[in-house]
Amino acid sequence: MTTPNYQLFSLGSNPELASEVAKLLNKDLSIVDIKQFADNEIYERIEETVRGCDVYVLQGISSPVNDNFMKLMIFIDAARRASAKTINVVIPYFGYARSDRKARSREPISARLIANMLESQGVKRVITIDLHTDQLQGFFDIPVDHLLAMPTLAHYFYEHKLLGDDLVVVAPGHSSFSRARKLAEILHAEWAVVDHRVSQLNPDAPFGVTGNVLGKRAILLDDIIDTGQSILFASRALKAAGVFEIYAVASHAVLSADSVSKLKQADLRQIIVTNTIEIPKEKQLDNLIQVSVAYPFAEAIRRVDAFESIEDIMKSPDNLDVKL
Amino acid sequence: MTTPNYQLFSLGSNPELASEVAKLLNKDLSIVDIKQFADNEIYERIEETVRGCDVYVLQGISSPVNDNFMKLMIFIDAARRASAKTINVVIPYFGYARSDRKARSREPISARLIANMLESQGVKRVITIDLHTDQLQGFFDIPVDHLLAMPTLAHYFYEHKLLGDDLVVVAPGHSSFSRARKLAEILHAEWAVVDHRVSQLNPDAPFGVTGNVLGKRAILLDDIIDTGQSILFASRALKAAGVFEIYAVASHAVLSADSVSKLKQADLRQIIVTNTIEIPKEKQLDNLIQVSVAYPFAEAIRRVDAFESIEDIMKSPDNLDVKL
Amino acid sequence: MTTPNYQLFSLGSNPELASEVAKLLNKDLSIVDIKQFADNEIYERIEETVRGCDVYVLQGISSPVNDNFMKLMIFIDAARRASAKTINVVIPYFGYARSDRKARSREPISARLIANMLESQGVKRVITIDLHTDQLQGFFDIPVDHLLAMPTLAHYFYEHKLLGDDLVVVAPGHSSFSRARKLAEILHAEWAVVDHRVSQLNPDAPFGVTGNVLGKRAILLDDIIDTGQSILFASRALKAAGVFEIYAVASHAVLSADSVSKLKQADLRQIIVTNTIEIPKEKQLDNLIQVSVAYPFAEAIRRVDAFESIEDIMKSPDNLDVKL
Amino acid sequence: MTTPNYQLFSLGSNPELASEVAKLLNKDLSIVDIKQFADNEIYERIEETVRGCDVYVLQGISSPVNDNFMKLMIFIDAARRASAKTINVVIPYFGYARSDRKARSREPISARLIANMLESQGVKRVITIDLHTDQLQGFFDIPVDHLLAMPTLAHYFYEHKLLGDDLVVVAPGHSSFSRARKLAEILHAEWAVVDHRVSQLNPDAPFGVTGNVLGKRAILLDDIIDTGQSILFASRALKAAGVFEIYAVASHAVLSADSVSKLKQADLRQIIVTNTIEIPKEKQLDNLIQVSVAYPFAEAIRRVDAFESIEDIMKSPDNLDVKL
Amino acid sequence: MTTPNYQLFSLGSNPELASEVAKLLNKDLSIVDIKQFADNEIYERIEETVRGCDVYVLQGISSPVNDNFMKLMIFIDAARRASAKTINVVIPYFGYARSDRKARSREPISARLIANMLESQGVKRVITIDLHTDQLQGFFDIPVDHLLAMPTLAHYFYEHKLLGDDLVVVAPGHSSFSRARKLAEILHAEWAVVDHRVSQLNPDAPFGVTGNVLGKRAILLDDIIDTGQSILFASRALKAAGVFEIYAVASHAVLSADSVSKLKQADLRQIIVTNTIEIPKEKQLDNLIQVSVAYPFAEAIRRVDAFESIEDIMKSPDNLDVKL
Amino acid sequence: MTTPNYQLFSLGSNPELASEVAKLLNKDLSIVDIKQFADNEIYERIEETVRGCDVYVLQGISSPVNDNFMKLMIFIDAARRASAKTINVVIPYFGYARSDRKARSREPISARLIANMLESQGVKRVITIDLHTDQLQGFFDIPVDHLLAMPTLAHYFYEHKLLGDDLVVVAPGHSSFSRARKLAEILHAEWAVVDHRVSQLNPDAPFGVTGNVLGKRAILLDDIIDTGQSILFASRALKAAGVFEIYAVASHAVLSADSVSKLKQADLRQIIVTNTIEIPKEKQLDNLIQVSVAYPFAEAIRRVDAFESIEDIMKSPDNLDVKL
Repeated sequence: MTTPNYQLFSLGSNPELASEVAKLLNKDLSIVDIKQFADNEIYERIEETVRGCDVYVLQGISSPVNDNFMKLMIFIDAARRASAKTINVVIPYFGYARSDRKARSREPISARLIANMLESQGVKRVITIDLHTDQLQGFFDIPVDHLLAMPTLAHYFYEHKLLGDDLVVVAPGHSSFSRARKLAEILHAEWAVVDHRVSQLNPDAPFGVTGNVLGKRAILLDDIIDTGQSILFASRALKAAGVFEIYAVASHAVLSADSVSKLKQADLRQIIVTNTIEIPKEKQLDNLIQVSVAYPFAEAIRRVDAFESIEDIMKSPDNLDVKL
Repeated sequence: MTTPNYQLFSLGSNPELASEVAKLLNKDLSIVDIKQFADNEIYERIEETVRGCDVYVLQGISSPVNDNFMKLMIFIDAARRASAKTINVVIPYFGYARSDRKARSREPISARLIANMLESQGVKRVITIDLHTDQLQGFFDIPVDHLLAMPTLAHYFYEHKLLGDDLVVVAPGHSSFSRARKLAEILHAEWAVVDHRVSQLNPDAPFGVTGNVLGKRAILLDDIIDTGQSILFASRALKAAGVFEIYAVASHAVLSADSVSKLKQADLRQIIVTNTIEIPKEKQLDNLIQVSVAYPFAEAIRRVDAFESIEDIMKSPDNLDVKL
Repeated sequence: MTTPNYQLFSLGSNPELASEVAKLLNKDLSIVDIKQFADNEIYERIEETVRGCDVYVLQGISSPVNDNFMKLMIFIDAARRASAKTINVVIPYFGYARSDRKARSREPISARLIANMLESQGVKRVITIDLHTDQLQGFFDIPVDHLLAMPTLAHYFYEHKLLGDDLVVVAPGHSSFSRARKLAEILHAEWAVVDHRVSQLNPDAPFGVTGNVLGKRAILLDDIIDTGQSILFASRALKAAGVFEIYAVASHAVLSADSVSKLKQADLRQIIVTNTIEIPKEKQLDNLIQVSVAYPFAEAIRRVDAFESIEDIMKSPDNLDVKL
Repeated sequence: MTTPNYQLFSLGSNPELASEVAKLLNKDLSIVDIKQFADNEIYERIEETVRGCDVYVLQGISSPVNDNFMKLMIFIDAARRASAKTINVVIPYFGYARSDRKARSREPISARLIANMLESQGVKRVITIDLHTDQLQGFFDIPVDHLLAMPTLAHYFYEHKLLGDDLVVVAPGHSSFSRARKLAEILHAEWAVVDHRVSQLNPDAPFGVTGNVLGKRAILLDDIIDTGQSILFASRALKAAGVFEIYAVASHAVLSADSVSKLKQADLRQIIVTNTIEIPKEKQLDNLIQVSVAYPFAEAIRRVDAFESIEDIMKSPDNLDVKL
Repeated sequence: MTTPNYQLFSLGSNPELASEVAKLLNKDLSIVDIKQFADNEIYERIEETVRGCDVYVLQGISSPVNDNFMKLMIFIDAARRASAKTINVVIPYFGYARSDRKARSREPISARLIANMLESQGVKRVITIDLHTDQLQGFFDIPVDHLLAMPTLAHYFYEHKLLGDDLVVVAPGHSSFSRARKLAEILHAEWAVVDHRVSQLNPDAPFGVTGNVLGKRAILLDDIIDTGQSILFASRALKAAGVFEIYAVASHAVLSADSVSKLKQADLRQIIVTNTIEIPKEKQLDNLIQVSVAYPFAEAIRRVDAFESIEDIMKSPDNLDVKL
Repeated sequence: MTTPNYQLFSLGSNPELASEVAKLLNKDLSIVDIKQFADNEIYERIEETVRGCDVYVLQGISSPVNDNFMKLMIFIDAARRASAKTINVVIPYFGYARSDRKARSREPISARLIANMLESQGVKRVITIDLHTDQLQGFFDIPVDHLLAMPTLAHYFYEHKLLGDDLVVVAPGHSSFSRARKLAEILHAEWAVVDHRVSQLNPDAPFGVTGNVLGKRAILLDDIIDTGQSILFASRALKAAGVFEIYAVASHAVLSADSVSKLKQADLRQIIVTNTIEIPKEKQLDNLIQVSVAYPFAEAIRRVDAFESIEDIMKSPDNLDVKL
C-alpha cells in the first residue's frame, strides 16, 4: 500500500494555462464535472477518487469573478467531503485584491472576505502570483506561496534582445513606482515616472514626466491593465516627452470595458502581459503578446509536493543575468 | 442618548418586494451604493452610519445566484466593519438549497457551504421562507426564522372563492406529497399524486394518477417551478385522467431555460407563485399571478425587532379559516 | 522507523459487531479501560499507545444513548490528548437523528448538536450507515462515509431464494416511500404504500393500501423499528387487503417500550433487521433475524485506510444481481 | 417597546433548589417540556418565547450525570435557535470535575471536555459553586461566577450555636487541608489533619491525626462525600484520638454506592451537606441535614442581571461575623 | 435598574495621553492594579466592577513593546472573565506594524499575529491612529476605527501661522510620497521628494531632490521617526538643494537608539510629532514639539459610545480650513 | 523523494540546554536569525527551509518572560507561513503558570491566556516539565507531553550516595506537600512539613515543623525557587528543630530579586535545581548545583518523532530503584 500521488484540477478560468502547467508536471488533469444552470447555480462532481490525496486546483478569480470564485468554493467543499488530504488552491489572478483597505467609512475589505471564505472551508495553501499589494499575504493565516511575474516578463526582453542603453522603465503613476524601479534594475535600465499630479504642481515640467526619456524606448509597467486609461494617459505623456517607442507591460490583463479601444489609441509598439487571465479572442490585439507563467506555477507545485523551498523561483532575476 | 433604531437594506435581487416590506414597516430603505464592474467584481459602500444598529438586509440568492450571493457577503463584511450591532439576512429565495446532500460520491453539499460562509462572517440570524427541505435549518447554528408561503398561497384561493367540493390538490411527484396533503387540509380538499413511476409498475392504472380526479379542478402544487418539465408532465396526466381545469401553484418561480414555453404547453388555468424571485417581464405569462410574501417578511422583522414570537405568522392557516 | 498502523477500538455499544469487524480486518481490538460509577460518571483510559496512529472507534449512539454518546466523547478527548494522528468514529446507529429540524418553534435540532460536539473535539471522519435523512451529512463539515444497509438486507432475500413474481415491497407510510421503491427495483418486485390518511380521504379504497397486493407476499420496509406501531398498523391493513405473508424489514432495531408485544400481534413471517443495534436477549423474538453489517463497515475502514474509494460498497446492489 | 426580562428554567436535576431560587427572585420558572424515551433519547421544547431574553437555566451534572448533561446541552441548542439573547447556565454540581488532569498517560480530561462542549454551543456564562479545584475556572474562556458554599455551611454552626473553644476543624486527608484551615478561621476554631499516610511514616503518632483533638468536638470537612470511605476512616481515627463528637460537613453529597451504610458506621453526630445534589429519600439518613445554597445562587443571578459585582456574596464570611 | 456606563482604563504606556483623553470625556480613569515582577511577569487586577460595562482600554504597543502588549492581553483576559460587556482597545502606537508582509521567505507577519491575538481573546473593536499601511485594517475581522494624525499635525502649522507660498512638503523617500502629497493639499503647499536612488540614476539632478525647493521652507514628513537616519539624509539633501529651513514632522516618535544625536545633526528648525508614544525626558530635544492626539481619541470614544459615525473626525482637514 | 526529517530550533532562552538536547539527538540546531530592536520589537527569519518538516522549538517563558514569549509566538507565525508540517513547542519553564485561577474577583488567568495564544496560532503539541499544577494540562486542547523533573533530581541523591536513614524530605509549606511525599517515597525517606500557620495554632509545636526531623539531614523541596523567602523561613525552622544539614531542591530556579542574598542567609548545604531556567553568572552561588533535564526533553522529542509512548520517561523513578 502506498500513499496516493497528488492530483491537479482545473475549474475552467484558465484552461490553457492549466494544460501547460499539467504538461510541465507530466500529469494529466484530473476530471471534475462542472455544470452551470440557467440561473448561474453551479453543480460539480469530482469524477476520480481524491481520498488521501494532496489536491491542487487551479482557478483564477477573473471574469466572471463571482462565478469563478464560487466554482472554486464548491470544489473545495466537494474535495473536503471526499476526504482529500489537503486542498491547495492555485490562483493565477486574485480578484477583489484592490479592495484591500477601507478608503472611506463603511466600505468592505473584500480581499479579506475572499481570504476568510477560502480559509474557513479548509484550504491549506494558496499559490498565487503578483498580488496587488504584498500585505494581502497577511490576510491569510495559512501559507501563501507568492510568486512573481517579473522574472518571466523581464525574460521576454532578454530573449528578444530588446535591452540597451536607450531603454527606460516608466511607472504610469505613483503606485507602480517600486515595480518600475525593480524591473529597471533587472534590465540595467534607467527609470522614470509619469504622474498627472506632477504636472499640476510643477507646471513647467514637460508633460508630467519625471526622468530622462527623450529619444528613448520606454517600458510602461503596471501590475494590472484594467480600463487602459492610465496606459493611454501615460503613453501620450511619454510621446510628448519625446519617447521613441513604448512597450506596455503588465502582470494581469483584466482588459475590461472599452480597454481595447484605449489600448489601440495608445500607439504602443507591443503590449506584453502574462496569461494569468485568459484573454478572449476579440480582445487579442495584434500587438498583444502573452507570456506564460506556467513555469513558475508548475515549479511551485512540484517543489511544494517535494517539500523543497520555493525561494529560488522568486529570486529568478539572478538566473536571467546568467543567461545573458 | 438613545439606542439606534434598526435599519433595512435591499441589495437588488428583489427591489419590489423590498419596497413592499419597507412600506409595511413604515421604514425607508437605507442606502447602499453598489457598483458592478465589467469583470463582475462588486463594489459596495453603505451610505449611512450603521454603528450600533440592528441591520436587516434583504437579498435573494436568485439569478444570477453567484453575483447576488457575493453582493450579500460583501455587504455583510462592510456592515460588520462599520460596527453594525447585528446583521440579519432576509433571504426570499435560498439558492443552492437543492444541493443538500451527497447523492453520489464526491459531490459537494453547496447549501451547507452557503450556510457556512454566511455564518463565518458574523451573520446573526437568517429569515427565509419555504426552504427546499426542513433539514436545511440544521445547516446553521444561528437562529433561522423559517417562514411558510402556504398561508399566502392558500389565501389566494379563499380570496377568489375558488374552493369547493370539486377541488383536489395534486402533487406532481413523490417529493411534493406532504406539501400537497397539507394544502389539501387547509383548503378542505382531497388530494392525489401524479408519479410517472406509478405508470410503469401499475400499467393498468389510469395515466399514473393516484386518487380520484375525474371531473375535478386540480391544484398542482410544487415548491419550485424550475424547468417546468414536471408541471407539464403532470398536467397532461391530469387532463388525460379527466381533470376539468388546473391551477399550478409554487412558492419559488425559478423559471429557468425554456420553462415559459413548457408552461404554455401545459394548458393551465392559472399559475400562482409568490414574489420570492423577481420575474422578468418576458417571462410574465398572461395566466401567471404573483402573490406577495411581503407581509410575512415584514411581520417577522417587526416581531424580531420587538422580541416577540414569530410562531403565529407560521401558523396562519388558522387565521385563514377565520376569514371564511 | 515506520509509520504506526491504524488501531480499532470498541466502546461497548456493539461488542459483537465490533468483533466481527475486527475479524474481517484481521485486527485485534485495542484495549480501553472503561468504568462507570454509581452516578453514571464514566472513566476511560486507553491502555495502548496511540501516538501517531489513525484511530477507528466503533460506538453506536443507541440505548442508553446519552451514556454511549459520552463514552464516545470522552474517548475522543483521551485519544486526542494521547497524540492520535486522526480519530475516525464508526457509528452503527446515529441516535437523535430524528431530531433533524424544528418542526415547531423552540425545538432543538439535536442531531446537529451531536454533529457539532463530535466535530468540535477533533473527529476527522464519521463512518455510519442509513442515516434517517440524507441531509444529516450536511450537518457535518468533516467527511461522512455514509454506507447503505439495503444491499445487505436485499442479499438476505436473494440468499434465501425468497424472490418471485408474487413479491411486493410495501412502505408502511409516506416517509418510507422512496426506500421501498429502491428495494423493489433491486428485488425486481412491485411496490405499494400503506397510508392511514389515504383511507380517510378515499374511503372507498380498500384498507388504505395503494397498489396491487392481493395474494402476494409483502416486504414491509422501514428505516427504524421503534415502537412497532406503524408495522402493526400496516401489517393489519395488508392482511385485510389480501396479502399472503409479510416480512418486516428495517435497518435499525430500536425496539423500544412494548414494541415486542406489538410485533408479536403483527402476524409477521419474519422480521429482518441488521445488527446496528445490539438486541437484548429478551427482545429476540423467534421470527427475528439479524443480518450483519460487519462487512460494509470493515470494508469501509479497510478502504479508508488504504486511500481507496468506498463508492463501490454503496453501489453493491449490482453485485447482488451478479450473484443470482 | 421594552427589553424582555430574564427567564429562569429548571431541567429537573434539582427541582427543589430551583423552586427556592425562583421564589427568592420573585420569578416563576419558565416552562420547558422534557420527555425521555425508552432508549434515553431526550426531547425538549421550550414552551414560552425566549426571543431577546437573558436565559438562566439551572441544571446540575449530577446522577444520572450523562442524561442530566445532555438535557442541558439540548436545552442550550433549543434556546440558541429560539433567539435567546444570552444563555447562562447555573450548575449546582459540576460532574466530571475530578477528571481535571491526566494522572496517567492516555487519560481524558473530562472536565475540560464538559467545559468545551458548553462553550462551543454558545453558553455565555457559568454560575457554579465549590468547584473541585479552582483551576477549573481556567478550563473556560467565558466568565465563571464561582460561588462558595462555605459561608452557608459556616452559618449553620453560628445559627445552631455550635461554636466554642472545644471545636476543631479536621481535614480528612491532604487535599482538604486548605478548606479546613479556611473554615477554622471563620469559626475561630483550631484545625487538624487525618492522613493515613501519616500513620505509616510516623508510627508513633496517635492514629494518624495531626493536631490537638483530644476531648474536642470535630468538624470533618470535605468538598464531596462520594463513597463515604474517607469520612469513615477519618472518623474512626478521630474517635480513637479522643474526639468527643464529630460533624461531617461537605459541599456536595454524591452519596454513591453503599455510602449510606458507611456513613451509618461512622458514628457521626450530624452530617451537614448542601442541596447542590438532590438526595433521594432512601439516602436521607436521620442525622443528615441539608442546608440550602438557594440564596447565593439567587443573589448571583440577581446581581448578574443587575450588572452588580458578585464579589460580596463570596466574601460573606464577614457578614456572618456581623450576625454574631 | 440602568445599564452601566462605559469605563476607561489606562495600562501605563501613555499616562499623560490617557489623562487628557479622560479629561476631555469628563471621566475618571478606572483603576487597575498592575505589578511587574523581577522576571517581567505581569500581574493585574481590575479594582472596580466592569460587569456589563463597555470597557475602553488605552495602551500603546510602544517601548517596551512586548511588556506593553502583554499588559494589554492580560487586561483583556481579566476584563472578559469579569463579564465586561465589550472590550475596546485604544492603541495610540501599533507596534510590529512594519512587519506587515513577507519580504523574504520564512519571515513572520507579526502585525497579523498581534491582530490575531487581540481578536482571539474577544476584543470587539480597535481604535488606533495612522497605521503604517492602510491594509493593516484588513488584518482584523473586527471593526477598526482608524483615526488620522494629519489634521492635528496640519493644525499646528495653521495655528502658528507657518503657512505661505514658500512652504513645500517633502517626502524623505518613496514610501512617504502619498502622505506628503496629502499634507501639501491641506496646507496649500507644493511638494517634493528626496530619494537617494534618484541621485544614482539621474546623477545630474541636484542632490536627489525632485521638485522645486530652492529658497523654500520645507516640511519633511514621515509616519515614524525611528533611527532618524532618513530624516538626517533628507535634511542634508534639502539644505544642499537650497532649502531655507526645515520642519521634520511625523506621527509616531519611536526615537530608538542614537536617533537623538542624528536629529541634532540634522539642523532642523523644529521637530513636530504627536504624543502617540510617550517620549522620555532625555530624548526631549529643545526643538522637539509634541502635539496631542487626545482630541481625536476622545472624540472617537465618545461617538462610538453614542453610536455616532466617526467619519467626520477623520475628514477634519475641512474643519481646519474653516478655522483659517 | 523522501519525507523531510524533523528540525530543532532554539530561540535563546536556554542556549546550553538546547545544545545538550541537540547533542543527545545527534542533530544540529537549525538556524533562525533573531534581532531585537531598541524598543524591544523582535524580528526573526528562519534561515533554512522547514517546508513539510516537523519543527520542534525550544524556548522557555523565563526572564524576560514577555520578550521570550513573543519570540516564541513570532517564530510560530513564521514557521506556519513557511509551511512547516507541525510545530511542537518545547517549554522548559512555563511562565505565568502560577496565574492559574481567579483567587480574587477580576483577576486574569494568565496561564490560560498563554495556552490560548499558543494554540490559536497552530501549535500542535507542548512538551514541558513540572507544571505548577497538573490542571494546567487541561488549559490546552492539544496534546501536552508533561515530563517530570523528579527522577532527575532524585537521581542526584542516588548518584552522590546521599541516601540514608537520616534523610527526611520536607515541604516548605502546604502546597508542596504532595511533591515532598512523592520524593520521600522514591528516596525511601520520611517526610515532614514546615508551615508557618501551624505555629500560630499549635503554639507548643516546636517551630512549626510537623514530623520527626531532629538530627536529620533534610531535603527541602519546592517546585519553584523565586524570592527565596519560603526557603529561608523553612530552613531557619528546620535548624531550630535540630536538623543537621539542609539541601534545598527545586525544579525551576526563577531566582528573582534579592533571592541570592536570602539563599546565602539560609545556611544550606547545597541548592540543587535543574537547568529549565538559565542562571546568570552573578546568581550562581557556590553551593548551587544545576542538574540537567536535557535527557528527558531529548528522549521525549525522539519518541514523539518515532511515534513511541513517552510514558516510561515519566515513570523513571522505577528505573532509579533498579540502579540502586
